[in-house]
Amino acid sequence: MTDDALVIFTPSGKRGRFPLGTPVLTAARQLGVDLDSVCGGRGICSKCQITPGYGEFPKHGVTVAEDALSEWNAVEDRYKRIRGLKEGRRLGCQAKILGDVVIDVPPESQVHKQVIRKSATERAMVMDPATRAVYVEVAEPDMHEPTGDFERLARALKEQWQVDRIEADLSVLRQLQPVLRKGEWKATVVLHKGNHDAATRILDIFPGFHEGPLLGLAVDLGSTTIAAHLCDLSDGRVLASSGLMNPQIRFGEDLMSRVSYAMMNPGGDVEMTKAVREAINTLADAIAGEAGVDPAAIYEMVIVCNPVMHHLFLGIDPVELGQAPFALATSGSLSLDARDLDLTTLNRSARVYVLPCIAGHVGADAAAVALSEEPDQSQDMVLIVDVGTNAEILLGNRSRVLACSSPTGPAFEGAQISSGQRAAPGAIERVEIDPVTKEPRFKVIGCDLWSDEPGFAEATRATGITGICGSGIIEAVAEMRMAGLLDAGGLIGGPEQTGTPRCEATGRTHSYLIHDGSAEGGPRISVTQGDIRAIQLAKSALYAGARLLMDEMGVDTVDRVTLAGAFGAHISPKHAMVLGMIPDVPLQNVTSAGNAAGTGARIALCNVAARDRIETTVRHIHKVETAIEPRFQEHFVNANAIPHAVDPFPNLSAIVHLPDVSFNTSSHGSEGGRRRRRG
Amino acid sequence: MTDDALVIFTPSGKRGRFPLGTPVLTAARQLGVDLDSVCGGRGICSKCQITPGYGEFPKHGVTVAEDALSEWNAVEDRYKRIRGLKEGRRLGCQAKILGDVVIDVPPESQVHKQVIRKSATERAMVMDPATRAVYVEVAEPDMHEPTGDFERLARALKEQWQVDRIEADLSVLRQLQPVLRKGEWKATVVLHKGNHDAATRILDIFPGFHEGPLLGLAVDLGSTTIAAHLCDLSDGRVLASSGLMNPQIRFGEDLMSRVSYAMMNPGGDVEMTKAVREAINTLADAIAGEAGVDPAAIYEMVIVCNPVMHHLFLGIDPVELGQAPFALATSGSLSLDARDLDLTTLNRSARVYVLPCIAGHVGADAAAVALSEEPDQSQDMVLIVDVGTNAEILLGNRSRVLACSSPTGPAFEGAQISSGQRAAPGAIERVEIDPVTKEPRFKVIGCDLWSDEPGFAEATRATGITGICGSGIIEAVAEMRMAGLLDAGGLIGGPEQTGTPRCEATGRTHSYLIHDGSAEGGPRISVTQGDIRAIQLAKSALYAGARLLMDEMGVDTVDRVTLAGAFGAHISPKHAMVLGMIPDVPLQNVTSAGNAAGTGARIALCNVAARDRIETTVRHIHKVETAIEPRFQEHFVNANAIPHAVDPFPNLSAIVHLPDVSFNTSSHGSEGGRRRRRG
Repeated sequence: MTDDALVIFTPSGKRGRFPLGTPVLTAARQLGVDLDSVCGGRGICSKCQITPGYGEFPKHGVTVAEDALSEWNAVEDRYKRIRGLKEGRRLGCQAKILGDVVIDVPPESQVHKQVIRKSATERAMVMDPATRAVYVEVAEPDMHEPTGDFERLARALKEQWQVDRIEADLSVLRQLQPVLRKGEWKATVVLHKGNHDAATRILDIFPGFHEGPLLGLAVDLGSTTIAAHLCDLSDGRVLASSGLMNPQIRFGEDLMSRVSYAMMNPGGDVEMTKAVREAINTLADAIAGEAGVDPAAIYEMVIVCNPVMHHLFLGIDPVELGQAPFALATSGSLSLDARDLDLTTLNRSARVYVLPCIAGHVGADAAAVALSEEPDQSQDMVLIVDVGTNAEILLGNRSRVLACSSPTGPAFEGAQISSGQRAAPGAIERVEIDPVTKEPRFKVIGCDLWSDEPGFAEATRATGITGICGSGIIEAVAEMRMAGLLDAGGLIGGPEQTGTPRCEATGRTHSYLIHDGSAEGGPRISVTQGDIRAIQLAKSALYAGARLLMDEMGVDTVDRVTLAGAFGAHISPKHAMVLGMIPDVPLQNVTSAGNAAGTGARIALCNVAARDRIETTVRHIHKVETAIEPRFQEHFVNANAIPHAVDPFPNLSAIVHLPDVSFNTSSHGSEGGRRRRRG
Repeated sequence: MTDDALVIFTPSGKRGRFPLGTPVLTAARQLGVDLDSVCGGRGICSKCQITPGYGEFPKHGVTVAEDALSEWNAVEDRYKRIRGLKEGRRLGCQAKILGDVVIDVPPESQVHKQVIRKSATERAMVMDPATRAVYVEVAEPDMHEPTGDFERLARALKEQWQVDRIEADLSVLRQLQPVLRKGEWKATVVLHKGNHDAATRILDIFPGFHEGPLLGLAVDLGSTTIAAHLCDLSDGRVLASSGLMNPQIRFGEDLMSRVSYAMMNPGGDVEMTKAVREAINTLADAIAGEAGVDPAAIYEMVIVCNPVMHHLFLGIDPVELGQAPFALATSGSLSLDARDLDLTTLNRSARVYVLPCIAGHVGADAAAVALSEEPDQSQDMVLIVDVGTNAEILLGNRSRVLACSSPTGPAFEGAQISSGQRAAPGAIERVEIDPVTKEPRFKVIGCDLWSDEPGFAEATRATGITGICGSGIIEAVAEMRMAGLLDAGGLIGGPEQTGTPRCEATGRTHSYLIHDGSAEGGPRISVTQGDIRAIQLAKSALYAGARLLMDEMGVDTVDRVTLAGAFGAHISPKHAMVLGMIPDVPLQNVTSAGNAAGTGARIALCNVAARDRIETTVRHIHKVETAIEPRFQEHFVNANAIPHAVDPFPNLSAIVHLPDVSFNTSSHGSEGGRRRRRG
């Protein structure tokens, strides 16, 4: 009989010998086994549940006796009674090792657990957040050993949680004394440890054992829309997702017009900074309200955005981004205090992490897309297109990744579109047009029925049918082309040419009426010739950017295409190809990644190691500058038609019929001129 | 002939061989020789001046040839012409090593130079400040290598100044782009590297080579007065010293009444925090004005204060300091952003260092006194008394140091005194009373003449004679006792008892008239019986604290006494002993250290290693708690008389005559009762 015993943990396989009487949690800690605990082994949190295995384990070469662990005790009894404990489970902090034993750590007891959620984007999220809560017991003050409360708390964190180099905000120091006394020298402490060699900072402190939520906000700050996911930092769950229009639109619809605004108006950048920070405060408040939580429980925010938004959000004049060599004030990642960014809605000690930028025109949003879609890990050549007012485009595989941005304008987000609106309940998001009758049917956000299905009117009564969002306009234009309502040059035919009264004359051009709600006091929703032109310009810019990267990579085709966008889970690959947004590729190889930039932000929010990863990755991404590249202009001009003059879609013609119509009669000739959107 | 040469630096004695053609500055850097340079060897700053020695150096075993250094060059010529260069001096960055040479680094070229100044307190200051300015040349942005301006600046700082782990405030990032362009990619950067393993932070940036001042503020925040020294961080010079009354006095004169105010009035602590921070802003502004500099050039502030002021300054409710066990919220040193403390007068990126506290009643001011006076380095047993509203008392030697604080009240600072005022021009600071005629003469601050010397009236016309400051009241009371105007119990005699009409009846007691300015519209300045009582209470508390430490140390006498205080350069040791402020010791062993707490703050401001030193030292100082020690009360009661009932001054009686008078007649008997000032 020895006085120690062999312990083997699964699934990690880690093993070691421990003195008899050692709690399983202690053994796990000493071996570096990933076993969760918030209360530090005091039988309060029940996070350290384990499943001991008994009997023969030939694989491990041990036999586990029935009495290999100490007997079920009163603490475990209480937990089972109050919270429930699955059959066969023990609390790792209560069960003591009395003989050789095999211990399984179930997934929900692992700190770095993989959480798969249906909400937001389906995505396995490996949890390793910068912010976590721990429970500590602090020594009481003693007149004869006069250290401060903070110093005794720091010592407790070091002894009980092995946390070194602790710092605390003044706001935490301010609360420290009443909180410790209220909790009778027991407290739950919210800790934040950024990446690199940052010290650990105390963000908040609560008396006793506190189970309140620990939240983070992942923000994709676009030129036109600001999208955010509110996440539970303990398991990565998305509690709510929401968005609003970027209020900077009033200073200019696209990035370059905002840079111009800053150049022309002294203090203009300060105005725009104020507007966007206020909007993020509003959004944080709204999203917390939606989830029914207090925004003060948001301890961390990760933000991704293009370089101009990056500078305006940080309060840096973006003027240098408007002219060659497009120098960023800073390209690296940033870890900041929310209060220095006037983000007063969040917790007063909240931290903000800004992903690194790739270059002056390729921002932290592109970095977030790279973090989410990992082109650098791809075996085949993948083109990733993040559709927005400014499109981020990545092309590459394991050997090399290229990136550029392309100023598509806000049309894909439903802005600059006559009936356009952001993706919200009531917005038309899908459109089909019968090629024979030319009649449309559509779906609106918030209702699962098509507009020609029974019950649609009732189902949409609450929201109304209010406009058409980005994915809706893409489908509408592509469907119009497939139904022969639009010629290859992008001109809408008149009623006599198309045979449908829905093609109405509006001035010197025509519009196609999708929905007339005027009888019920709602809007008439049409696609106008102006809408078509806006979409043509946007898709040409997108396509030209992709082609430019392909030129640089020296490839004529790509193996697969990933479509992404702030609200882009709904872009239909088929319609995108009909429009000519993306180069030719077998349709089954076009996938939709949803809001990849937002997903990248969520990954960085939930996993601190991912921050190191993307900071390394961005240094290896080669940036291609569209603004000074003559071939970009050439590709842009060539990409205007639907389809292009020389049909680049052999794959596509097999699945969709693009009728050979032309509406370019003399009466509409004067409309044909192209505007160039780029300064 | 070899292709390298021996270089020996004096006074350090560091030596090494270097390839011919190596600049002297480069050799100095590689050997770790303390040779200053702001411009990094570009011949701009002229801080790297050296004196080469020629001829035989038997001590070093070398002969230095006339051509051991490269010839005097155009850069040196220009410097000599424009700024002057002492005979025999060379610029270390220009002079290249061509043969064995001995190089002397003159004191003014050393970074860690010792600067001795007459102003403020005479004190050798070893310079090693946390904040310094360096000149860098930054690579221009390149579209094909898209790093941010900050990243290129950080690389330049690493390559040119070996500075790693650079951080920048948002406010610096905001200025970065215009400044770098204005300076054509040359800039002067203000860097701050705190103690411990802090990253280096950029506090400010200027285009090109900038020679503006780099200032620090050393603040001694007392209960009654706030004193500050404005220092040049490049050489430790004190540019100006100033002070003002602590505006918290309106919430309570002593510390415990302020704690009570916070306890009784919700938000009272916030009010007091606001008041003291505003006062520091005012003081910073005034002191910068006095020195004729911009307060925005103040990049750093070091603050020392007692624990209650410490908490109120930091915005922490001091309520716990009002009751046993007197727990501090935090006892360690703090490094903070000035903006988080609302110190908006300083540079917007300024840093604040708060010295550690020793215990709940013994604060950062006591730590600063220990840093300045170094009792832990003393061979003999030294008693250090920092006189203020709350007195800090240290007793010890190399083996052991004890500390306590004693609530003396504000009398020693001229508050609670009928004609009291703070030490400012016009205040009576020295008093002598003729033992025969009982006539006084005095000196006022701002005038070197005694009041009975010719020209005194003219010399004081501008300031007037406005009141009596702390050192003045101490001398006045002691002189009154020596002149027989005051008995051992502290009662002032009447005119018939003392034989002088200056002892006037005021109600049931008497006052002694020092100066009557009423004819010129000025005040009548008297010492009242109430003033005597206030001083008696204060000195009893001080003496009792010192005795308590002596009890704890197990000694009956001390070897020497150091008197200090915020404006305490002027306390007369003789008068302090007559009063019985301090225990008996040979008079020549009583020295005045001036504002030792302020000096400690200046040391920590000028030398970052001193911060580490005091942080270590305070952990070894043993604190004695006066508030709960019954012997303190006993000592306090016994110390009331002047001198004490049992004469403890065998040394003193040899030098001063204490007349055996008694004025405690029945008509004054009702006055004899003692108030206790302690809550």
